[in-house]
This record gives sequence, C-alpha cells and structure tokens, in this order.
Amino acid sequence: MTKRIGILTGGGDCPGLNAVIRGVVKASLVRGWEVIGIEDGFDGFLHPQKCRALGLEDVSGILPQGGTILGTSNRGNPFRYPILRQGKVELVDVSDEVVSVISALGLDGLIVVGGDGTLKIALELMNRGVPIVGVPKTIDNDLLETDVTFGYNTACEVATEALDRLHSTAQSHHRVMVLEVMGRYAGWIALESGIAGGADVILVPEIPYDIEKVSSAIVARSKRGKRFSVVIVAEGAYPKGGNRVVKEAAGGKVAVERLGGIGEMVSRELGGYLETDIRATVLGHLQRGGSPSMFDRCLGSRFGVKAVELIQEGSFGRMVALRGRRIESAWIGDAVRHLNLIDPEGEMVRHAEELGIILGR
Amino acid sequence: MTKRIGILTGGGDCPGLNAVIRGVVKASLVRGWEVIGIEDGFDGFLHPQKCRALGLEDVSGILPQGGTILGTSNRGNPFRYPILRQGKVELVDVSDEVVSVISALGLDGLIVVGGDGTLKIALELMNRGVPIVGVPKTIDNDLLETDVTFGYNTACEVATEALDRLHSTAQSHHRVMVLEVMGRYAGWIALESGIAGGADVILVPEIPYDIEKVSSAIVARSKRGKRFSVVIVAEGAYPKGGNRVVKEAAGGKVAVERLGGIGEMVSRELGGYLETDIRATVLGHLQRGGSPSMFDRCLGSRFGVKAVELIQEGSFGRMVALRGRRIESAWIGDAVRHLNLIDPEGEMVRHAEELGIILGR
Amino acid sequence: MTKRIGILTGGGDCPGLNAVIRGVVKASLVRGWEVIGIEDGFDGFLHPQKCRALGLEDVSGILPQGGTILGTSNRGNPFRYPILRQGKVELVDVSDEVVSVISALGLDGLIVVGGDGTLKIALELMNRGVPIVGVPKTIDNDLLETDVTFGYNTACEVATEALDRLHSTAQSHHRVMVLEVMGRYAGWIALESGIAGGADVILVPEIPYDIEKVSSAIVARSKRGKRFSVVIVAEGAYPKGGNRVVKEAAGGKVAVERLGGIGEMVSRELGGYLETDIRATVLGHLQRGGSPSMFDRCLGSRFGVKAVELIQEGSFGRMVALRGRRIESAWIGDAVRHLNLIDPEGEMVRHAEELGIILGR
Amino acid sequence: MTKRIGILTGGGDCPGLNAVIRGVVKASLVRGWEVIGIEDGFDGFLHPQKCRALGLEDVSGILPQGGTILGTSNRGNPFRYPILRQGKVELVDVSDEVVSVISALGLDGLIVVGGDGTLKIALELMNRGVPIVGVPKTIDNDLLETDVTFGYNTACEVATEALDRLHSTAQSHHRVMVLEVMGRYAGWIALESGIAGGADVILVPEIPYDIEKVSSAIVARSKRGKRFSVVIVAEGAYPKGGNRVVKEAAGGKVAVERLGGIGEMVSRELGGYLETDIRATVLGHLQRGGSPSMFDRCLGSRFGVKAVELIQEGSFGRMVALRGRRIESAWIGDAVRHLNLIDPEGEMVRHAEELGIILGR
Repeated sequence: MTKRIGILTGGGDCPGLNAVIRGVVKASLVRGWEVIGIEDGFDGFLHPQKCRALGLEDVSGILPQGGTILGTSNRGNPFRYPILRQGKVELVDVSDEVVSVISALGLDGLIVVGGDGTLKIALELMNRGVPIVGVPKTIDNDLLETDVTFGYNTACEVATEALDRLHSTAQSHHRVMVLEVMGRYAGWIALESGIAGGADVILVPEIPYDIEKVSSAIVARSKRGKRFSVVIVAEGAYPKGGNRVVKEAAGGKVAVERLGGIGEMVSRELGGYLETDIRATVLGHLQRGGSPSMFDRCLGSRFGVKAVELIQEGSFGRMVALRGRRIESAWIGDAVRHLNLIDPEGEMVRHAEELGIILGR
Repeated sequence: MTKRIGILTGGGDCPGLNAVIRGVVKASLVRGWEVIGIEDGFDGFLHPQKCRALGLEDVSGILPQGGTILGTSNRGNPFRYPILRQGKVELVDVSDEVVSVISALGLDGLIVVGGDGTLKIALELMNRGVPIVGVPKTIDNDLLETDVTFGYNTACEVATEALDRLHSTAQSHHRVMVLEVMGRYAGWIALESGIAGGADVILVPEIPYDIEKVSSAIVARSKRGKRFSVVIVAEGAYPKGGNRVVKEAAGGKVAVERLGGIGEMVSRELGGYLETDIRATVLGHLQRGGSPSMFDRCLGSRFGVKAVELIQEGSFGRMVALRGRRIESAWIGDAVRHLNLIDPEGEMVRHAEELGIILGR
Repeated sequence: MTKRIGILTGGGDCPGLNAVIRGVVKASLVRGWEVIGIEDGFDGFLHPQKCRALGLEDVSGILPQGGTILGTSNRGNPFRYPILRQGKVELVDVSDEVVSVISALGLDGLIVVGGDGTLKIALELMNRGVPIVGVPKTIDNDLLETDVTFGYNTACEVATEALDRLHSTAQSHHRVMVLEVMGRYAGWIALESGIAGGADVILVPEIPYDIEKVSSAIVARSKRGKRFSVVIVAEGAYPKGGNRVVKEAAGGKVAVERLGGIGEMVSRELGGYLETDIRATVLGHLQRGGSPSMFDRCLGSRFGVKAVELIQEGSFGRMVALRGRRIESAWIGDAVRHLNLIDPEGEMVRHAEELGIILGR
Repeated sequence: MTKRIGILTGGGDCPGLNAVIRGVVKASLVRGWEVIGIEDGFDGFLHPQKCRALGLEDVSGILPQGGTILGTSNRGNPFRYPILRQGKVELVDVSDEVVSVISALGLDGLIVVGGDGTLKIALELMNRGVPIVGVPKTIDNDLLETDVTFGYNTACEVATEALDRLHSTAQSHHRVMVLEVMGRYAGWIALESGIAGGADVILVPEIPYDIEKVSSAIVARSKRGKRFSVVIVAEGAYPKGGNRVVKEAAGGKVAVERLGGIGEMVSRELGGYLETDIRATVLGHLQRGGSPSMFDRCLGSRFGVKAVELIQEGSFGRMVALRGRRIESAWIGDAVRHLNLIDPEGEMVRHAEELGIILGR
C-alpha cells in the first residue's frame, strides 16, 4: 500500500544528514511512496511553503555534501515556540497547530532526524498521536542504544587531523599544544581522537582533572627527552572540585566559539607549572560542517533506508540504531533516558591509559 | 611478573599495522615487559639480527604512518619455506627451527598480526607449543568473529574518494566509469564504498552478475536523463555461469595490477550493449598503503593493547576482535574456519538495493 | 555597453573547469551582460536546446565541484564532425553551420576553455570571424605562454598522494613500486610530483631512458640499505632507441586505462635485472576528476574573470595566462605553436638530479 | 672543491621546512660536501651539542612531515639574546660569540631559512663576515622578490578547506560564519583562500573595512534568497578609522589564539546590524603545522637545492626566489626592505570584486 511520509532534520549541523535524507527518499520512491520534506525542523510545519515533495532530483548529488538540504532552525521546539508579542519574545505552545498540520498533510509516518533534544520533542508528539520514527544524530555520540551515530566519525577524523597538524608544531617548537574539541557532557570525541592522534593528555567531562597530575606527566616526558606534548580537551572538561567552564554564547545571536573556555583555562593552569611555551586552539565548527566521511555516508544512507522499513512495518516510537555491523532499532525513550557517557572505569579509558596517555586523575 | 613477548606482522600491507605495533610496545613497557620485534614475518626467526628489542623510541611518531616498521616477507610460511637447492626453489618445512628459536628467545607470548593465511600458520605453531595471540589483519574484512578489521576502513575511504573523482568525470563526459577494487572472495570494500560513494552498480564475488541486467539498468538511468553511471566491481566478481577472472601476477616477482581483470572485462561486456563511452580504472595498491584513517589508528592501537592483555591473562590461541564498541576476543580457529562473505540475502545488500543500486542479479 | 557572450568547455576533464565558468558568469553579471552556456563543447551549437542562459543560480555551489556543468563531447570538432551516413561514420565539415549559429545567437564574444586541440579549432573559427577568447586547459601543463594551467596542480597533488601511499608499501615489503601517471608528450606531472613525492626514479617522454641505468641505481640504493624504491613514469615515456608505448583505447568507445602501457613495460624490464618484487599501478582517471585544489579554484576563477575583461577590451584571439602572480594574456597562436615540453638540460631536471633522483640517462 | 656548510631554521612553523633541509643535504652530499645542522635557530651556535653533521639517514622520510627536524627557538636573535641575570631577563648582544663559533666551525656558507625577522638578523651577520645565503619562509607570503614562499600554499589549502566546512553549516542553519585566518600585516591568505573557498566577504589589513558596507551586502544577499554568508578575515584587519585589534599573547609563555581578536569583533559588529545568527572560528595554528602540500614540498626541495648552488657560485647575501616556474635569486636586503602587501587597487583585489566578493570598502 502506498504511503505518504514526512522527514525533518533538527538541531545542530552534523555530517551525514544529507545521506539520511537521500536514503529516505530513495527507499520511499522504490516503494512508490511519496516523501514530504519539512524545512527548518518542526518550524516548517507552521509555514505551508516549507513542506514540499522530495523527488530523485532533489537528492541527486547530495551524498558527499555537508549540511542538510532541509535546513534547521532555532525555533525547533513547538512546545516552547518563540513569538514576538509587544516587543518581547514569549515562548508559547504551538504543538496543537503542528499536530493538526501533520494530520492535514496526511502523513503515514514522520521521520525525525535529531539528537537528544529533538527526539524528546518527537516523543511528546508521538504521545499526541503523530506516528514517529527517529534517526539519532549527535556529533558528541552521547545517545544510548546505538554503537555510534552518524557525524561522530567525521568529527573524530577532523579532530585527529588537527592533532596531526599541532603535533609537528609542538615538536619543532618544543611546545605544549592544547586542542579544545566538542563534547559538553560526553568526551567521546576527545577520547577517541586523542587515541588516534597520539595525544599525550586527554581531558574529558567524565573525569575531572588534577592539573598537577597533568603537569607532572608533561615534565616527566620532558625529562625523557620529549620536549613537547599534545593535549586534547573536551569543551565540558573541568578541574577536580571545580565547575564546568562551558563556553557561553557571547550573548544572543552572536555565539562565538571563544576561548576563555576550558582550552584556554587548561593552558593558563599549565602555564603556572611549566616553563615550556603553551598554545591553545579551539576546533569549533570545523568539526561539524563539511563533507562526511565514508563511514558516515554509508551509515547515514542505511539509517535512512531502515527508517523507511520501520514505517513500513508500523514500528513507530522506535529509533534506528547501529549494533555491530547491523542496523537495528530501539525505543526512542530508551535512547534518551540519559546521556551516553564515558565510563571512567571502562575499557576505552583503560586502553588509553595503557597507551601511556594521561587522563589527569 | 615481568614478561618477554614477541610481535611480528605477516602478509600484505594494511593501514594500521604500525598502530598495533605501537600499542603492543606501549602497553608492554607500562607493565615493565620486554618486547622483541621480529622483522619480515616468521622469516625473521631464521635470522638472529632480525629479532630486536623494541623501545619507546622505535614506535615514536609511527602512529600516522602506513606500512609496518617490522616489514613482511614472501617467505612467511615456515612450513613451506622456499630454499634454493641446486638452482631450484624447494619448499621445505623449517618449523622445527622456528619453534626452537622462539623457545631460545624465551618468549612468554608471541603476537601474530596477520590475515587468514598467517593466522592459520600461527595456529599450527600454537599446536607445537608456541603461546600465540592473534591480531586480525585483512583489507578485505573477510575474517569471522570481528565486526571489522583495521585497514578496512582506510581502504573504503580511499575507494570512496576514488568514486567521487570518477563521478565528476562520468557526469561531465556522459560516460560509464568502472572502478575495480580489492576483494578476491569477499566484496565488502565494493559494497560499503559503493553505498558511500553513490555507485549505481556494485558487483561482488558473492553475487555472480548478469551483464544484461546491468546494462538495462544503465540504459534506464539514461532514459531518466542521467547520461552517466558509476560502477564499482570487486576484483573477484564474475558473470553468472562464468569463472572468476582473478588477476594473475604477470609471472614471478613482477606482479602487475593489470587490467585484463574483471574491471576491463565488465567494461568490454558493457561496451556490447551501450553507446556510451566506458572507462575502467584499477585502484590497486593505492587501497592498502598510506596513512591510516582515524578509525583504523584507534582500532589498531586498542587491538595492540588488548593483545597484551590477553597474554597477561594467559588467553593463548585467541584473537582480538571488535564487537560493537568493545574489544573482545575469539578463538583463532573460529575466526579462520571459513571466510566472512557477504550474505546475498543479508541486510547490507538489501539496503543497497533499496537505495536503487544494481547488483546485477 | 551591455554584451551577450558565450562560453563552452572542450576536451578531457580537468579540475577547475567549474571555477572558470563561475568566474565568467559572475564577472559578466556584475557588468550587466548576458551569458549563454553552450553544452557539450562546439557540438552544442548544433542543438538549440544546448545553448542556454546562465544565471547566478546555475553557478551557485559549483566552485568545489569537479567536472564541468556544461559537459563536453567527443564530437567537439566542427571541422571533422562525425555523422552517420548509410551505416558508416563520416567526418564532415559543419563549421559553416556553427559560425552561422554563433552569429544568430548574437554573441559579442565566445570564451573557449580547452587544450591544444580545442584552442586550434577556436583559432580556425576566429579566422572565420568568431570573436574568440581562450582559456588554457590541460592536465599535462603542455601549453606555452602560461606558467601553469588550472587542473595541473590538482593532478600533481593526486599523484603525490599516490606516491605517499605506494611509498609505505614499498618500504614495508622491500619492493619497487611503479606509478604510471598522465603525460603523453610532456612529463611535467611525473617530474613535479616525483620531486614532491620523493620518487627515486622519474621517467619522462623528453628523456628516453636506459633501463640499465635505472636498475643500477636501484641496486646501488639497495646496497646502501634502502631495500625499496619508488618509480614514477609518464605514460609517454619510452626507452632509448625504442618507441612510445602509448596506451591504446581498447577499441572504439571502451577505452581502458590499461597496463600493457609503459608502467607495465618498465616493471617487466626491471624484473630482468632485480631480485626485488615489483608492482605497477596506473593512476588513470583519478588524476583528472574530483574537487579542484585551492590553487586551481583560485586560478580558474581569476582566468574566468580575466577572459571577461579581455572581451570587454576587445582583445580577441588572445588567451588568459598566468605569469608569476599576475593574470596576463597571450596570442592563442603563440600558445599552441608547439607543446610546452620539459627541457632535458633545464633547471627542474637539474634540481631533480641534484636531489639524487634518477632520470634514466 | 669540497665545502662544509651550515643550515638553520628560524621563526614560526611553516610546512615545507623539512623539504628545504632535505634538499640542502641531498644537493650537498651529491657534491661531496659536509652539512652541519644547527638546532633551534641561531641559539644552536651557543650550544656545541646542537651543531651536528647531517647525513642521508637524517633526512630520510622527512619530506612529507610538517615542522622542522632542526627545531627553532624563542632565543633566535643573537643581537638581543635573553639572559637571566639576578632574577631578571636581560637582552644582551651575543653576536660576537655566534660569529666566532661559525668561524670555528669552518663553515664555507650558512643557509638561513627564515622570514622577515630572521633574514634581517642574517644580513647583520653577513655584515660581520658570515657567508650567508637566505631561504624565504613566511606563511603570510609577505616577503618581496619572490612570487610566493613555501608554506603559503599549504596554509591557503587549510583555510580553503575550513571555508568549505563552514559553508555547509552556514547554508543549513541560515547563518553568517566568520573565519579568522593568519595575516597580521598582509592579507594574502584571506584573499586567496577567500577567492578559492567562495567567501562572500574578505577583510584584509590593507583595506580598512566599513562594517555598514559589509552588513548591507549580507542583507542584500539575503534578499536574493541567500540566507547565509561566509566571511574570511585576516587577523590584522581593522575598521576604517579604527586600530588593529591584533591578538596579544595572553602574557608570557601562554599564548592563546584567542578570540577577542578581529574575528570576534567583526561578529559582534555584524550582530548589531543583522538578525541572522553569527558564528566565529579562529583557524590559528592549524594553518602552519602538518604535512606540506605537493606545491610546498616541490618548492621547498628546489629552494634547498638552489641555496646550495648559490653557495657553490659564491653568491652570498642572496636569497632564493620563485619567479614564474624558475628558481632565481635576489638580494636579501631587497626582499626585506618592506613587507609585500596587497595592493588595494591591484589585480587580485579587482578580480575578487568582479567575482562579487565584498571587501568592505
């Protein structure tokens, strides 16, 4: 039986979004279904012209492209939708309107591609009768129930290449180079890129660091003739007994990926212990834009196909998930019940420490 | 208790070998163990100067480098070791000598990094009392018991980038471009890179192809206005009812990655059906050399650490293995009992077909 | 005064073509001019639907893309245009028709982007009154009057990366790796990539090689402990006293980038002298497709702008050219009077030899 | 006649330094000369153990590596050498000692690889009788007398790739993305990468910007349906009537590539005019570390060879220089008489503007 389905992408940029959209469109058209692309996340339901049929031509050539052809929006939460009233922004609940638009569109299923926040909104709409299928999307890899999410591999590739670049400068100039990467609550990017990029120190939010332990390790390296070190630090890392120094948007719409965050803080702290020159770099948006890696293109494509399969079999409320080499599915509620954090006593941390990497504890 | 262990690398080149070696050395030195690197595979045991202690300096800076600092050899099978006698090469069994050298070296464990062939040799030596731990290594990803092997991700990245390059020429010149990639028995590289690179046709050894099906699909595309197609074919693919056209070494030591293999054959076959220009390219050694991807550097490093852990706990006869996000282990015998082939009715093939890709059946 | 100009791209693929087209369109629209894009080279003039206005939307996002949005064709020579008559292909002169179409289109200038062959055709049309401006395009960098052409830098980057990949395999396996690159008459790609990629031997058409000199050098390296070598050879290279072994299209429309060309020949010849394993790889189309390098994107863009400037000042018959950091112009006739070949006694060859590289003479 | 020469590298990191060193060593050994590598710039002369013979093994495999195997130092100016006296750092003139060490080493020539600062020091030593040959080294390309310097091409490649990454996020999220790149006095990196990366706005030190002009252009784009823009800004850019907001080292040895520099300032200024979200990124050290591009590897190698040739012919006081495709030479004094800045009325700026790029004037 032919169906009409919708797809939207929510939240921050993530390499592989276009692969998912293309996979959904191709697998739907093969079935003779119709696909409606909703632009700018849930906000698109409030603007009729933003809901448009997607054909093969729309997804031709988008596989290697970063970003999302559907766009996203800051007004992506219909339960807290910003409306300007008498010169002030109020957050109002427009979910009734969204639900009725979805109903009017006659969607037999709605594929929501998003992270923790977007999927929680999707769950609420599910409870209001919208037939939802989820596709997990997070650069930070902090969702449960799936081995990894698309975009994470590309982000780690970019961070590893950055470590390679900083490494040669560190070595030539006998310096400590500090690289701040994404990861507000989960330090996976720092941990995996740090292992791959040969970092000497990895600091993650899950393991508050002791700066003396870090500086001693660098000094010890120096005594062994290694007059340089490379440090990778997740943006949400913080010192033992301290608080997170999460970067704040510089106010309103101008959000600067500024230092003054943890990368700079670690540099200054180390400066109190070391005689070596120290330099900090913030990788920022370079991690989330741009062409996806092979892994993320394949994973995104398969996630898209699987989402269509879930709609076909009526498995609503579920999210596609990678397990080993297979694409399976899980309840969205299970995936967002808490964040997928690094286990400080877990295997990957142990492997890092056996490789001689300092985690600052 | 301190230990003395050995490590060798066998078989063809594979990005990530140096990451494994570095992981083994770092995790051993952390334990206060001694590591003996054996050069040129099992052949190294027959040359005392090829067995040398590895220290931190030996593995410094090798993480991003392709190849293996230990080298490999064509004389890697001690049960069939080539010896020149009276002007003729004879294959003799020198395994007794190898076993006694290992014994004399006082190795508490020997880490063998290799594919199907090398691991089978390792098993035989295990039966002769050598305490073996295996690390799976195959570009083709054709070993059982592990989700993937290191090197495979890099090979797929290289193949995907090649597809991207061929794609733009195909489109501009209205051509069919054929790319031949590795995969003598297992078509994983062609399948996964084909999905990631947006191939229109994927031909693998596990699914003998019908050239008429392939050409009809290309003609159908052309009628929809797509005057070009990109075909990826594993070197071991073959037509329905036909035989494998595996490339032969051009004789002895000069092995040319020649066309005249399946890439050329598919091109000629298609030439009989299509009016379009057709061009074939053989990716060859570009897939197996060069700097490993982030994924393979991290996986290789963790495999190295895990191999040391297996020796520590006395788990001989086992091979490290990736399962989801964890590094586990499996019996070497289970990993090599048959090749890990694509299931023609399996999920990844189905996903490819739902994406509109032709597999020629 | 507003103008109406045309642009077409001829000959083989070359990274940066889209940058040129985009540059022409942007610089024209800034002037209030109209741009007609002619698809599939000169063949487009014979098909009214292939001559279409180009606007900003048509060139949006094409800067990083390989290929040409205008396409090219095998029927690009209007003086020898293939027409099927009574089952046979005849080459007829359709230049009158082309000239009259150009006249009917009311073009104040026609920008022809092409290599030696295409520019010679352009000159003939110029003599028939068509106001031509040329943009040099050749992967091989074999045009006179310009320091380099766009696309050449990208090709050399790809070849250098290939050398890097082969290098690690050569070293690990104690092999000689041979890489065949483009350059039928001019060996610039082999020479410049060979220097950048650390090749041990570079063979170019301008210097017929003596295989004994090459093998002696490899043996000498081996005696110094370097048990491997990397050889780069231009497709048009040939042995002293021999003939070019230029690859032949495998017949008609199926042109296979086959070995059996010079890469394989050099491998076999070396096989007669060396005990080492030898492997050959043909880079083929991977050199000419795909995203252009920064250099070629900038050069292509500036070439496009300069071509518009030449039309504005009425400098017809001229070709844009890079001289140092400036874009200047030259007579097309001067650029194609003979090929720009490597001077065997020139500076770049001398530099290569001072770097210890063997050129086989 | 055999010679003994020295080589040192001064100043900041720059991709291609190792190619120069390798070129010098290879071209010297071919002549039977001896090469002394001086570690950590001029500081090495004050530490006998830092002056060591360089052989083929020392330069084997360094061609693709970033950084410099000779290291550099913050104490690179012998005329103002920092010495700790009674707890305070004093800058003293140790040039006599340096000159006498050079004399004692018996150097027939000293190759100094460095930028504006290092080459001026070299000139002063030249006046004291040291036989100097210069090799220009500046990421910013701000030296006269040479078309470009090595390292600049790699920096522009990195910046262009960063623009590509930011572009997709800008487009998907309808944002203005601001990228701050190097260029304290000369904006070449911003200008050339901006053209290659399709930037909408390029701000350079040579053209003080009017923020209203910039914001109007972005608003105009938005009205044409382009709801995003990409801005590239050199670190030394500044508003009309304002001062340079050059980033200051955060004090002493901890120099943080911080925002609070011009990238952040432009973002905030734009925030006052636009409703769009704005994000800033600082590329920082990622531009100067890491593996050099093909172009810089070839240029660096040839510069190294040419420097040796200059010593051979006794052309002291001269610096190697690229002119078109040739390596020539110039008086060091001519190269450093003032910085090589962008001509605001020059060709490359005009080309940028004809491409529709806003320079803010």
